[in-house]
Amino acid sequence: MLAKLRIIPLGGCGEIGKNMTVIEYDDEIIVIHTDIMFPENYMLGVDSIIPDYKYLLDKLDNIKAVLITHGHEDHIGAIAHVMRDVDAPVYATPLTAGLIEVKLRQGGLHSEVELVPIQAGDKFHIGQNFTIEPFHVAHSIPDCVGFGITTPAGLIVHTGDYKFDHTPADGWPPDFAKLSEFSERGVLALLADSTNADRPGWTKSEKTIEKGFDELFRNAQGRIIIASFASLISRIQQVADMAEKYGRYLAITGRSMRDNVKMARRLGYLNIDDSILVDISDIADLPAHRIVIMATGSQGEPSAVMGRLARGRHNRLQIQEGDTVVFSAHAIPGNEELVYRTINQLYRRGANVLYEPIANVHVSGHASQEEMKLMINLVRPRFLIPVHGELRHLTQHAAIARQLGIPEENIAIIENGTPLELTQDELVVCPRMKGGYIFVDGASVGEIDWSVLRDRDKLAQGGFFFAVLSLNGDGRMLGEPDIVSRGFLDPVEGREIIEGAKDTIERVVNQHRDTGGGKLSKKIEDALGRYLYAETGRRPLVQAVIK
Amino acid sequence: MLAKLRIIPLGGCGEIGKNMTVIEYDDEIIVIHTDIMFPENYMLGVDSIIPDYKYLLDKLDNIKAVLITHGHEDHIGAIAHVMRDVDAPVYATPLTAGLIEVKLRQGGLHSEVELVPIQAGDKFHIGQNFTIEPFHVAHSIPDCVGFGITTPAGLIVHTGDYKFDHTPADGWPPDFAKLSEFSERGVLALLADSTNADRPGWTKSEKTIEKGFDELFRNAQGRIIIASFASLISRIQQVADMAEKYGRYLAITGRSMRDNVKMARRLGYLNIDDSILVDISDIADLPAHRIVIMATGSQGEPSAVMGRLARGRHNRLQIQEGDTVVFSAHAIPGNEELVYRTINQLYRRGANVLYEPIANVHVSGHASQEEMKLMINLVRPRFLIPVHGELRHLTQHAAIARQLGIPEENIAIIENGTPLELTQDELVVCPRMKGGYIFVDGASVGEIDWSVLRDRDKLAQGGFFFAVLSLNGDGRMLGEPDIVSRGFLDPVEGREIIEGAKDTIERVVNQHRDTGGGKLSKKIEDALGRYLYAETGRRPLVQAVIK
Repeated sequence: MLAKLRIIPLGGCGEIGKNMTVIEYDDEIIVIHTDIMFPENYMLGVDSIIPDYKYLLDKLDNIKAVLITHGHEDHIGAIAHVMRDVDAPVYATPLTAGLIEVKLRQGGLHSEVELVPIQAGDKFHIGQNFTIEPFHVAHSIPDCVGFGITTPAGLIVHTGDYKFDHTPADGWPPDFAKLSEFSERGVLALLADSTNADRPGWTKSEKTIEKGFDELFRNAQGRIIIASFASLISRIQQVADMAEKYGRYLAITGRSMRDNVKMARRLGYLNIDDSILVDISDIADLPAHRIVIMATGSQGEPSAVMGRLARGRHNRLQIQEGDTVVFSAHAIPGNEELVYRTINQLYRRGANVLYEPIANVHVSGHASQEEMKLMINLVRPRFLIPVHGELRHLTQHAAIARQLGIPEENIAIIENGTPLELTQDELVVCPRMKGGYIFVDGASVGEIDWSVLRDRDKLAQGGFFFAVLSLNGDGRMLGEPDIVSRGFLDPVEGREIIEGAKDTIERVVNQHRDTGGGKLSKKIEDALGRYLYAETGRRPLVQAVIK
Repeated sequence: MLAKLRIIPLGGCGEIGKNMTVIEYDDEIIVIHTDIMFPENYMLGVDSIIPDYKYLLDKLDNIKAVLITHGHEDHIGAIAHVMRDVDAPVYATPLTAGLIEVKLRQGGLHSEVELVPIQAGDKFHIGQNFTIEPFHVAHSIPDCVGFGITTPAGLIVHTGDYKFDHTPADGWPPDFAKLSEFSERGVLALLADSTNADRPGWTKSEKTIEKGFDELFRNAQGRIIIASFASLISRIQQVADMAEKYGRYLAITGRSMRDNVKMARRLGYLNIDDSILVDISDIADLPAHRIVIMATGSQGEPSAVMGRLARGRHNRLQIQEGDTVVFSAHAIPGNEELVYRTINQLYRRGANVLYEPIANVHVSGHASQEEMKLMINLVRPRFLIPVHGELRHLTQHAAIARQLGIPEENIAIIENGTPLELTQDELVVCPRMKGGYIFVDGASVGEIDWSVLRDRDKLAQGGFFFAVLSLNGDGRMLGEPDIVSRGFLDPVEGREIIEGAKDTIERVVNQHRDTGGGKLSKKIEDALGRYLYAETGRRPLVQAVIK
């Protein structure tokens, strides 16, 4: 029997983030991406989420390569987790490799992972079954690639994150020729970025922001403080260019951004003259109109620079009247409230704040609908597998493809963990494997699960109410029960309710003097729950311990 | 000394929602709005927030009237709370009064509040000092007004929620003539809606949605299910018109929407023929292409119709293949994640889902920047007080007014609880009064505060870890400590950590056998906190009870 080509998205299909795709032929596997996802608001206390790669754990020896398309924070965020298990070389372009190195060093894995530098336009073999051709795409960080992957079953094209930007910040437009060449050879399947599938039209070029920045630099009287993602290297270059043009000194603040700038300058991906860079601690000596600061915290994260500035908690920088603060980033869905709260706090401290839509200071890095059409028509794949998107994006991407004549049965709208089997003629969707989220919380990876999150949600909604009591030999209460409650009632206002709770406990104990410990606890908890709900209309987590 | 005119926003300045403005002259007060605010994501477990009206509690006898501009859910949501304290008539147009009546009945206050029906174009006196002239404005519910309020110090104009819609759903455009007339008389201060102050251009007319709906009704093969706000009466009318045009029966589901439709039809604000209305329980007998359903839950609220449909938890309705579900509402900031999750779940159940921006199914009800300019130029106030907005909106609104030539010192960007004193020549901003949020949580109003919310946040981040121990006479442990932990660790994976915690407790007890109860608890808690952080990198709420 001929071996089959299997494509399995382990992340990024049905969500934005934690992308990971497995390409498997015979006993050889390549993995594309090891991304993280930012937790949703209801995932209480979770720091980040990594793909569930249980499927790989049984097949670790089969993994021949990990391919990374670009170096954005979220796109390499899980690498230090995944590479603890996976022993295979990681292929990436130089800037991406540099950013990965920073990540691995933070994870203590630096010396253990083999990083293989590649270039767009290269062609190399992996194992017996795969030939890889990275091709240049435009996004919002330099040195991005997609991958052509020739397998015995046919040619697979993975776009990575892309937009068709004719005037990208680094002046290197996407490789249309390569995509056309793939198309001539015949493409079995296209895996394509779906992030903006519900946005009509074309995404604006990175170049268009320059107008917005130019206006900003021309008009700002005081300091300019610009927040963006630490890995948005192109944006940092644009700001540096403006600083040079308008005679301002540039200070970079936020550890991750500083690390990335250092590395990108060393590798030649950031062209910033030494003479315009200053340390944040030296700006006090400069006049306000000669200063521009780039900072982390564009999502309102409380611990990043912008969040600390907004709350007046930065130790070397304070917002002052006349500052112009710029949010040069989209709010990631779910972060809107936090971003706007931060913006309001900055206004309260006297800053003028520029953000979308009141100023042209950010564009998306992902293709909109018309670009998705162009990608499909350039590549002309037999099968389309929309990736990198929530279900609504994957569905819209599929609708676009149908408009272009790709038959419905040749499009796979699938969610994480659903294997696809492909031959030249057929795409078979296999049953979805069990899987889910791996939560990173503090030092623990995968040690908390949904049951823990459900408890946190219950506690978040109503706090807890705890009773500790002792019984004497004949089942009567020894002294008063101790009540400990947090997140439920204001302690002063709640005093009366606590007295009522003690009475309730005593009543239950006296009614059930013959009942054993576990059962009695349960009866007390039930009675307390009813009593507290009747008094307050709320349901804290109630527990009774008999000691 | 001449009495002074004071204007005090008690809500809605510095936030979207819970609007309440006090207008005070001498010993007479009128109150405009008694709104609620939906809690932000970080206000854990809070149901809603009402304005902090402590200021009024000392002056209850002075309150002569409560004026309401329109009947949207959030704009009358606090009325049953506020009217428990305030004994004054409530003035509202008939539809608004009808919606208020529904609210008061829910709050058990129906018979105790005097509702005075008014009409746009009326003129009436309140107390010795106020003459009120409601004027018609267009928004997204019929029967909206703003108020001209003549005081001894001058004429105040409050816009309420408005947009300059030339083709509103009910065919009644805003009263430009009245605004111009005010301007001729001379307007001392304009209090104007700032919601969309960061949106350039004009807000689209309600009429423009009809095209989107027409396309939808023409193309949908199966059932159509439309989610919107329960009080968006104009939208319900538009859907009913389409149902009639395309021969579909209309079912209304969601209690609040049903109540509102009943009342609005009775008062003549909704014109729906009996023959097209069906009960949701009867739709099973109708062919799919003859059905349209209007439902609550456009914000993804888990307990509303759309949330239950998305999770398959509605007892009389199930999403089926071929359904077209429409979200005819904006996501309120902070709700985006929930709305998109609901949309994804509906896709998963086989529905086609239409929402912004992929379909033209909603427009904002609030003025954009160009309309704000028009309002200011029509009214030509001496002083501008931007209301109804977060600080970023108030600030943008002020920037717009400065562009039109209103001097900076005549614009008051103020947050809740900041009194303004106005004379013909001067606007004085007084020191901000203490105040804050009044949280509604279950049956409790104002009984939980920030300290409770901080505890909930702590619990939400890391759960709790509880130790209960008994000591014998010489300070040694009696048996093992009981550990109760929730929201911190998966119980199976956590077994080892719990053993370690018990050892930690025993060590502390033995080291501090001479230490008293309270101090010992503290020492145990500190040691446990350190131990748990070292093991997991997380910080649950730790408590130790010695029983």
